[in-house]
Amino acid sequence: MTEEIRQGFTLWLTGMSGAGKTTISSLVERRLRGHGARVERLDGDEVRKHVSRGLGFSREDRDENIRRIGFVAKLLSRNGVIAIVAAISPYRAVRQELRLAIGAFVEIHVDCPMDVLIARDAKGLYKKALRGEIANFTGVSDPYEPPLNPELVIDTSTETPQESATRVWNKLKELGLIDFEHELSPCE
Amino acid sequence: MTEEIRQGFTLWLTGMSGAGKTTISSLVERRLRGHGARVERLDGDEVRKHVSRGLGFSREDRDENIRRIGFVAKLLSRNGVIAIVAAISPYRAVRQELRLAIGAFVEIHVDCPMDVLIARDAKGLYKKALRGEIANFTGVSDPYEPPLNPELVIDTSTETPQESATRVWNKLKELGLIDFEHELSPCE
Repeated sequence: MTEEIRQGFTLWLTGMSGAGKTTISSLVERRLRGHGARVERLDGDEVRKHVSRGLGFSREDRDENIRRIGFVAKLLSRNGVIAIVAAISPYRAVRQELRLAIGAFVEIHVDCPMDVLIARDAKGLYKKALRGEIANFTGVSDPYEPPLNPELVIDTSTETPQESATRVWNKLKELGLIDFEHELSPCE
Repeated sequence: MTEEIRQGFTLWLTGMSGAGKTTISSLVERRLRGHGARVERLDGDEVRKHVSRGLGFSREDRDENIRRIGFVAKLLSRNGVIAIVAAISPYRAVRQELRLAIGAFVEIHVDCPMDVLIARDAKGLYKKALRGEIANFTGVSDPYEPPLNPELVIDTSTETPQESATRVWNKLKELGLIDFEHELSPCE
């Protein structure tokens, strides 16, 4: 049963609500699974229900939530799993803390101009936040601190989700984190 | 990079404070690592700091803490990792809930008669609890519900930690969860 333990890592997508983190992470996840990789996607909203019931959206609570997600990602990563995290994670300091704790940490800033986010607003959250109906809404009534040195910046107002996913993929190859012998096309 | 995904599972040690859960789980962990297996040990007290800061020891909070540990164990298990949990986990219903959620779930009741626990009392906790100085102390001022159908019961008043660890090991083999070609002796 002995086997070589493959390198796991954490792919961390940070960015504002509606920027496209979940869409891009799902595409990357699917492609990795297609190659037989061990992958676990940790979606911020989803994981919150499991490990952060009762926490709110103050800076302190957000940071605690992100630390918990980071703890899970770290355990997965060090056991050879690729943990893909899609979480707003607005504060730079805690992301930096996780980078140091996890080591194999790839930070992707999923960026999108505010006017495009407001125009999209699929869940109607920006309208509500702008009317003052949602407190602590990142980008409106709460800060978002973009990464200073992310491995990659994606602008989802100028590229399709497929293009973004391919850029993430190529970055992972460039960093030597993935290396598949027979590479599938993005659509397989 | 494609590889066969090995079966992970969750080895869950439940029992009262001081019964020997941590000692036995450490021995099993070391032996599994010696065989190159992917293992992650989740110790109740330790994991609490990471995912359950702020939770107390009411039934509701204990159950929430155990659900969070179970969530992490599930993610590890389904990615081929052996998750070893050592946690008092006094309530039967939530353990049963996790068994159903995780599937590959091996429950070990680490049992020890109360008089032996009180005589050992390495941390002096039982004395304090019996003096009424610790509220919600399992076995004294809080219930412990033993498993009805655990995969194994260990009585640490009648066997050494090494003997207990070997019994756990043999149970895992019997269940077909581990199968090493060249088995190391427990002392290697």
